[in-house]
Amino acid sequence: MFDKILYPTDFSDVANKAMNYVTKLKEAGAKEVIVLHVIDERAIGDICLLYASKGSVEMVRRIEEEAWREMDNVGARLRQEGFEVRLRIEKGIPLSQILRVEQEEGVSLIVIGSHGKSNVEEMLLGSVSEKVIRKSGAPILVVKR
Amino acid sequence: MFDKILYPTDFSDVANKAMNYVTKLKEAGAKEVIVLHVIDERAIGDICLLYASKGSVEMVRRIEEEAWREMDNVGARLRQEGFEVRLRIEKGIPLSQILRVEQEEGVSLIVIGSHGKSNVEEMLLGSVSEKVIRKSGAPILVVKR
Repeated sequence: MFDKILYPTDFSDVANKAMNYVTKLKEAGAKEVIVLHVIDERAIGDICLLYASKGSVEMVRRIEEEAWREMDNVGARLRQEGFEVRLRIEKGIPLSQILRVEQEEGVSLIVIGSHGKSNVEEMLLGSVSEKVIRKSGAPILVVKR
Repeated sequence: MFDKILYPTDFSDVANKAMNYVTKLKEAGAKEVIVLHVIDERAIGDICLLYASKGSVEMVRRIEEEAWREMDNVGARLRQEGFEVRLRIEKGIPLSQILRVEQEEGVSLIVIGSHGKSNVEEMLLGSVSEKVIRKSGAPILVVKR
């Protein structure tokens, strides 16, 4: 029932808080965690537009490197808890990528933070999380900030 | 982390499916389940309006009796799983009552079905569930139909 968990993260505080819940689910039978980080292609597009003259390729490379560093930390922590872990970084629109990976991996549960880094303080629910909740087929555990 | 679960139910198929997840969380430390059923006061109002001449008091009494019968079944099943169970039937607006009980009981998790009995097939997410997800302070596990 909680066998294979999809844990999308943007490395925000709420996403880290959500990881504690992933960890706790080990006792209820969770075995495998797919950690997913999506590099928003729209943000990359903006960077390329803004910094075209100042080495945007280099900037994108650094974003990816930084993302992999964060992913490795998350992976190490989850492996330490005894999980089988797979790390995936995808480029695209976060909502579409999360739903694509959910389908592809046939996950039993999604664990997600209620807000992402880019969400303003006042929002009751971040827009990506809200849409994932609506559209996912799998049950979804939403951890509030 | 999953100590005290609030499980709102309208006895629909999705709510029953959600109960399986409640049960599974026992292994992750869940001890107590507050089962909550809200009798929608707006629906009662409609009944009283429609059947004023045909014994609406009697009808409301029957609705409550039926709800208690369903609640007792849910309670028996959860007790059998080893949970400490409390059954609460409240009258009012479902959203407000769920949030009130969440606060009152200081629950660690809400487990809820994505749709209620009254939701049409096409909706991606039932309106009560959607609002509870937005407004709850506790993490919330949404079980899809």
